Amino acid sequence: MRTAYHQELSRLGAQLGEMCGLAADAMEHATTALLEADLTLAEQVIADHDQLKTLSQRSESSALRLLALQAPVAGDLRKIVGSIHVSADIERMGALAVHVASISRLRHPDCALPDEVRASFAEMGSRAVKLARTAQEVLISNDSGKASRLETEDDAVDAEHRHLFTLLIDRNWQDGVCSAVDVALLGRYYERFADHAVEIGRRVVFEATGGLPTHKQLA
Amino acid sequence: MRTAYHQELSRLGAQLGEMCGLAADAMEHATTALLEADLTLAEQVIADHDQLKTLSQRSESSALRLLALQAPVAGDLRKIVGSIHVSADIERMGALAVHVASISRLRHPDCALPDEVRASFAEMGSRAVKLARTAQEVLISNDSGKASRLETEDDAVDAEHRHLFTLLIDRNWQDGVCSAVDVALLGRYYERFADHAVEIGRRVVFEATGGLPTHKQLA
Repeated sequence: MRTAYHQELSRLGAQLGEMCGLAADAMEHATTALLEADLTLAEQVIADHDQLKTLSQRSESSALRLLALQAPVAGDLRKIVGSIHVSADIERMGALAVHVASISRLRHPDCALPDEVRASFAEMGSRAVKLARTAQEVLISNDSGKASRLETEDDAVDAEHRHLFTLLIDRNWQDGVCSAVDVALLGRYYERFADHAVEIGRRVVFEATGGLPTHKQLA
Repeated sequence: MRTAYHQELSRLGAQLGEMCGLAADAMEHATTALLEADLTLAEQVIADHDQLKTLSQRSESSALRLLALQAPVAGDLRKIVGSIHVSADIERMGALAVHVASISRLRHPDCALPDEVRASFAEMGSRAVKLARTAQEVLISNDSGKASRLETEDDAVDAEHRHLFTLLIDRNWQDGVCSAVDVALLGRYYERFADHAVEIGRRVVFEATGGLPTHKQLA
């Protein structure tokens, strides 16, 4: 019985890792779709999200089953409750990739991005995807040292996000209101995506140490 | 022992209700601060958020304690796991009210809103706060019929949000890029606030019926 229990607990961890990988893929594809105005890829990101939602429901069911049948305590209990938070974070990351893809689709055949912000989004996309891949690794390895470094890596996404607002507001934006609105919302989606990856790292630290995670300053 | 357990379970429900009331208050004050360019009120919303974060951590600790000590099953288990989701939703609602207040503070002594969108934000704010108050009621009453109606009430917020984008993009926006960016982000904050209230309703339905909550179409 305990063996089946530990197998299911270990499966839950692996499933969260797989889901986080799918969210990273989704944002990677959404970023390419955005930069290249690739409609097919944008639509694929949107269609693929159902799989992530299904996996998220499955991992919550698995967590409920473990709680009901095994009455876990201490570290296992923290891990299972943590999985509920992490699963919600990952599903939200996938939804944010869908938002990015939806803006690409809406502006197709045009590119949603004016030339002057393309490099910013390429950079923000690459860093956000890297954060998600690191979150995936720490979900599998439970490496709390690496998990706690996610916050520092997120600083670069926040810096790029602030730079975008400088371009939009402080300088003389020449690309019109529609484009400014797209850029502001897109920047927000990347920033939130990265925040969720950081939140996953914070949960892994919590599971390892038992200390309540401190929340990042409001983003 | 079981009596203490039921008392703690009931306290947890009451605490979530209280927290949801605080999130509703926060968005009500943030909306007034936004409409009236009231710096003092905006700063109060920002300062008050710490209380919500503390209560959210306390409710998660309480959920963990109930799970560890009482090994609940069936309805009680769903209720406790639901409280973990609901607490995260409410904390996020408070953070979104802080975002609204932060834009008011940033633009002070100016008003962040051009005249032509003031009525939209007054309407969206009032509906969002009403949704949060309804969510608070259903957390206390567990009225799943009322909880399921939250989704319909949210349609009006979504409609107002779409109307904002019509003003920003399809018509000839005369108020500049900075103001368009503020309006787009503010609209997003209200829409997400309302989505979280709907999500709380969905959880209450789930707790009552045991069916997995279906997710709203991606917003």
